[in-house]
Amino acid sequence: MIKVGIIGSTGYAGEELVRILTGHRQAEVVWYGSRSYIDKKYYQVYQNMFQIVEDVCRDDDLAELADQVDVIFTATPQGFLAGLLTEEILSKVKIVDLSADFRIKDVAVYEKWYGIEHKSPQFLPEAVYGLCEINRDKITSSTRLVANPGCYTTCSILTAYPLVKEGLIDLSTLIIDAKSGTSGAGRGAKVPNLFCEVNENIKAYGVASHRHTPEIEEQLGYAGGGQVALSFTPHLVPMNRGILVTEYASLRRKEDGSLPSYEEIKAVYDKYYGKEKFVRVLEKGACPETRWVEGSNYVDVNFVIDERTGRIIMMGALDNLVKGAAGQAVQNMNLLFGLEESEGLDLVPCFP
Amino acid sequence: MIKVGIIGSTGYAGEELVRILTGHRQAEVVWYGSRSYIDKKYYQVYQNMFQIVEDVCRDDDLAELADQVDVIFTATPQGFLAGLLTEEILSKVKIVDLSADFRIKDVAVYEKWYGIEHKSPQFLPEAVYGLCEINRDKITSSTRLVANPGCYTTCSILTAYPLVKEGLIDLSTLIIDAKSGTSGAGRGAKVPNLFCEVNENIKAYGVASHRHTPEIEEQLGYAGGGQVALSFTPHLVPMNRGILVTEYASLRRKEDGSLPSYEEIKAVYDKYYGKEKFVRVLEKGACPETRWVEGSNYVDVNFVIDERTGRIIMMGALDNLVKGAAGQAVQNMNLLFGLEESEGLDLVPCFP
Amino acid sequence: MIKVGIIGSTGYAGEELVRILTGHRQAEVVWYGSRSYIDKKYYQVYQNMFQIVEDVCRDDDLAELADQVDVIFTATPQGFLAGLLTEEILSKVKIVDLSADFRIKDVAVYEKWYGIEHKSPQFLPEAVYGLCEINRDKITSSTRLVANPGCYTTCSILTAYPLVKEGLIDLSTLIIDAKSGTSGAGRGAKVPNLFCEVNENIKAYGVASHRHTPEIEEQLGYAGGGQVALSFTPHLVPMNRGILVTEYASLRRKEDGSLPSYEEIKAVYDKYYGKEKFVRVLEKGACPETRWVEGSNYVDVNFVIDERTGRIIMMGALDNLVKGAAGQAVQNMNLLFGLEESEGLDLVPCFP
Amino acid sequence: MIKVGIIGSTGYAGEELVRILTGHRQAEVVWYGSRSYIDKKYYQVYQNMFQIVEDVCRDDDLAELADQVDVIFTATPQGFLAGLLTEEILSKVKIVDLSADFRIKDVAVYEKWYGIEHKSPQFLPEAVYGLCEINRDKITSSTRLVANPGCYTTCSILTAYPLVKEGLIDLSTLIIDAKSGTSGAGRGAKVPNLFCEVNENIKAYGVASHRHTPEIEEQLGYAGGGQVALSFTPHLVPMNRGILVTEYASLRRKEDGSLPSYEEIKAVYDKYYGKEKFVRVLEKGACPETRWVEGSNYVDVNFVIDERTGRIIMMGALDNLVKGAAGQAVQNMNLLFGLEESEGLDLVPCFP
Repeated sequence: MIKVGIIGSTGYAGEELVRILTGHRQAEVVWYGSRSYIDKKYYQVYQNMFQIVEDVCRDDDLAELADQVDVIFTATPQGFLAGLLTEEILSKVKIVDLSADFRIKDVAVYEKWYGIEHKSPQFLPEAVYGLCEINRDKITSSTRLVANPGCYTTCSILTAYPLVKEGLIDLSTLIIDAKSGTSGAGRGAKVPNLFCEVNENIKAYGVASHRHTPEIEEQLGYAGGGQVALSFTPHLVPMNRGILVTEYASLRRKEDGSLPSYEEIKAVYDKYYGKEKFVRVLEKGACPETRWVEGSNYVDVNFVIDERTGRIIMMGALDNLVKGAAGQAVQNMNLLFGLEESEGLDLVPCFP
Repeated sequence: MIKVGIIGSTGYAGEELVRILTGHRQAEVVWYGSRSYIDKKYYQVYQNMFQIVEDVCRDDDLAELADQVDVIFTATPQGFLAGLLTEEILSKVKIVDLSADFRIKDVAVYEKWYGIEHKSPQFLPEAVYGLCEINRDKITSSTRLVANPGCYTTCSILTAYPLVKEGLIDLSTLIIDAKSGTSGAGRGAKVPNLFCEVNENIKAYGVASHRHTPEIEEQLGYAGGGQVALSFTPHLVPMNRGILVTEYASLRRKEDGSLPSYEEIKAVYDKYYGKEKFVRVLEKGACPETRWVEGSNYVDVNFVIDERTGRIIMMGALDNLVKGAAGQAVQNMNLLFGLEESEGLDLVPCFP
Repeated sequence: MIKVGIIGSTGYAGEELVRILTGHRQAEVVWYGSRSYIDKKYYQVYQNMFQIVEDVCRDDDLAELADQVDVIFTATPQGFLAGLLTEEILSKVKIVDLSADFRIKDVAVYEKWYGIEHKSPQFLPEAVYGLCEINRDKITSSTRLVANPGCYTTCSILTAYPLVKEGLIDLSTLIIDAKSGTSGAGRGAKVPNLFCEVNENIKAYGVASHRHTPEIEEQLGYAGGGQVALSFTPHLVPMNRGILVTEYASLRRKEDGSLPSYEEIKAVYDKYYGKEKFVRVLEKGACPETRWVEGSNYVDVNFVIDERTGRIIMMGALDNLVKGAAGQAVQNMNLLFGLEESEGLDLVPCFP
Repeated sequence: MIKVGIIGSTGYAGEELVRILTGHRQAEVVWYGSRSYIDKKYYQVYQNMFQIVEDVCRDDDLAELADQVDVIFTATPQGFLAGLLTEEILSKVKIVDLSADFRIKDVAVYEKWYGIEHKSPQFLPEAVYGLCEINRDKITSSTRLVANPGCYTTCSILTAYPLVKEGLIDLSTLIIDAKSGTSGAGRGAKVPNLFCEVNENIKAYGVASHRHTPEIEEQLGYAGGGQVALSFTPHLVPMNRGILVTEYASLRRKEDGSLPSYEEIKAVYDKYYGKEKFVRVLEKGACPETRWVEGSNYVDVNFVIDERTGRIIMMGALDNLVKGAAGQAVQNMNLLFGLEESEGLDLVPCFP
């Protein structure tokens, strides 16, 4: 049985980790870290866990945890892990970091977009970007540190990846218009996240400045073989869970000047995702919707070719707390320990 | 492997049955009945099931089904099953009926509240009212027909049952104010259930006339040893899932004129539910909330004694599609076939 | 032109006052008090007011305000006004207090339910409880201090008032089950009011202990001519605005043992509300719903007689920020200054 | 007093017309047309209008109406007005058509996108496209037929118009990602618009094929002086009202290769909208949000320049039932009859 510690277990992503791991047959949570609720019963913070989790919350003590568990999930604010990580810790325990600290290889880019100093850049080279469907081969038993991708990022990248990888779109035209449920904003008590402020409203935020932008650009840059600068606009939607991305790009025309056909594009998606359990390429005409993936680890993707403009509109949907956070983190853990990749993740989307 | 047929598989309760049975290790759905969508892929009706359920929808043919499956779930409108049921069918197959057809023993009461003739009252005597925590002993391998309780009913009864059974409240004072999410209204295309009609609104409906009233009265009458006439008022709440009941009753005073203490009432709840997996008696001061049971088979109950008025306020919460419909139906199936009662029902509530 | 000052203008009730007074032809806001946002443009706090309100927020300075305006609205926490009020202030200005400080005549009751000391009980005798439809005669140009009723209270009282006044119900059986939108919880940044905590949920709170209870009891006691102890249970509903109350009471039987008829009860409601602009007694069979009063100063009421139990179920709906707060406050202002009572309040409910 | 007839008065846009006209000092509704509810009291269809509107619904009889009123609003499905309009009718009455029948000048384009034959193309030349801020000069007392713009269209055009008109963006790069509340889908009883289907979900629909596309293209083509082909993707958001558009386009660089500055772009917006009452160009950094315009006739617009990609992100928000339908229709009526353009439209946005 793999012993798991969670730092930040009382945030929404932390709680989703607890929910998922409760159904995992080869791992058990033994440390519920939560600086805000030390010594409080976990179920008193999340009453859904009454009679399911009996443990109390404990301090976010990384060093102590390293001695007691096999893997640590850090569902913490930016800078937390980078500020505490040491070689000694990494020599004892594997870490799946749900924050952004080790996602971006270039420290300067990280510091520019996040506005904080990176305290342990020496671990950046070994950190593996844990987008399982793309980096599966790099996440092995010898990996010590996984940078779990962001929610917007996972959805944005997977939706466009096959076309970028195959060079079918003009990357300089890529625009990502993203919409997210409110759990992505976390459980902090802030006026803009109050019910009455979010309900009956939609807004863009972080326009041309959202921190997930460089992460998407870096990964799509690897896929496309070059630097990418794209537009990414997140929006806040009055719902609990779910991310939908709508992506626009000009298709590269074939030598005869024609656009690729539906079948040709579909074949490319199938090439990359045909055997992927958690990426579902929908049938022609079906648009991804967040309700169809809620509570599950699926990403639904599809596309429409617009002959009039020469563009392709790509769409992707996932549950930001599952495939966009805790589910993917467990998927990474499974890879790290050589388990069945889908263990604990056979979650059927729950509708309505 | 138990073979399962569902009639009415494309309603919300039917779809929840499919979701739950997907995770059941000893049962499999082999017939997705849906008169409205015959020959359509099930996942084209519920896209969450894409790459999970490959079957097509089939007609609601009860007789044909009886030959092919071990158990039939009927998630159908009132009158459907009563109109088709025969001894021959029941000799071949077990039926768990999610409609009201066999819940009320007195045909006259059924016909008065439902306004339709009961076409097969001869099966009423053998039908077992499938409120598992109360009637567990009667649901055995020899049972052929289970009347699965209504959603409001399950919540209303379980919340008050221990106090009624022990004679602690004055039954003539019992008032049940119930609130339900909108999935309880079904998937029929009706103006009152449109998003813009339900959202940003709360209303009572069926005041003093809702059909779940006699069902609650009959069962609490059995528990209390007498006839019961109570007030039951349902309300429609702008949320997908969940039922909350707030019940009011005057406590019987003890011989010295005092009210029972918190501890005395708590002990009574624990007596009946202390060993029940799916009924959680919350800690003192914690109010049941629908979000804490969403997606699970739990019923959360608790109470407050109001010394000023001599009343007890009892509260209960459940997910109307799980413990209020499909989950309890599977729980009944498990009992019918001698399986672990919680098989397939280890569903951790999903929040947020 | 009446000069108006608002203390607490950046809470939800304060902002609704601003909205309503913007359309008032004989009053203008000249002081937007908001301790939290001093010197900030009001429209930067509420962007809906961009190009409508150009003023900046100012301190909550009661004494200074008394010199500058004709009437002060205090939309402030409990204890604020009681802690600052002086004879000098009241000699200069009229005050409509939206807090509970002067609603309850008995200081001991106030201090028990609110848990704070009342700092200026000397003004309690002169304060008029501003439930206009009932106390209209007492709100005149010589009135200096109006205690504007609470939101739950207004709805609860008006729904039952005619029957209580006429002695048609047994007051000892009165139970009020109330449901409120989330704006009633204010704009404070608290975890329980975050979108993800409120959305997809319903819960009771303050069971047998909510502070509006004694206020309802006092006023219904005046109407019924005796002391009242009732059950009041508020619930939080995932919507922005609106309060619905469902009230239960045993009808007093007539000498022949029969219950009053629908027509008899209807006549009593019409006697009190037939000429009231803001109380609408609905047609037979129509249930009050919060959506039908949203944005307006209406209270919709209706009732159902339950012959089976001998009870009457009374229902009422209002917009908690309008008739439950700011609208009624303006209605009181109109009475204080001898204006048309509905000036500024011809607000047509906005649906959907 | 202008006599108004509404055909389709019981749809959401029709009801909003009734709400707005109730507060209009120079117009009164004398005919509430509604084929579905003939002879029913209007308030029985929309209970918010109880004691406000006493009229009954009448048939949708265009010819009869022409004799009785001064102006007809047709809030009807596509094809209705085109199928009935005659010279005789137009000789008697002015018509503001809220459908798409007379918005598109090119019949072939209309028939291609709407899939129906246009029955009265002879009136297309005289129909004025009623986007008041742009076509104000053409909407005069001699105008007989106004084609009231669509909701998405109004928002999409006004957000980009100044930059298109001034040639500041490369029109071939224009992408409009739009998000709408559900009232835009109308009051028809359809499964996809049920509460449980819309709530907790976001989806794109009509991708590369939505009917508002050619309308936007035609109008922006007039502004930009050429043909336009753009990408328009609508999304359905779980809220009642509101449209938000996020528009992307490459800025034309100046001769020195630099991008226009914030101040330069702002000046262009101010040039067109500085004196417009209903278009609010927000302060730097403020993003339009639908909640800030709800219930009002405002359109809020703003923009962000993205130096990294050379694009400008333009944003606009309006209430789809007001500026996107009924409000703009009344604004057009005011222009047709030489009234103050904002009469009846001094609606302060209602938040929360």
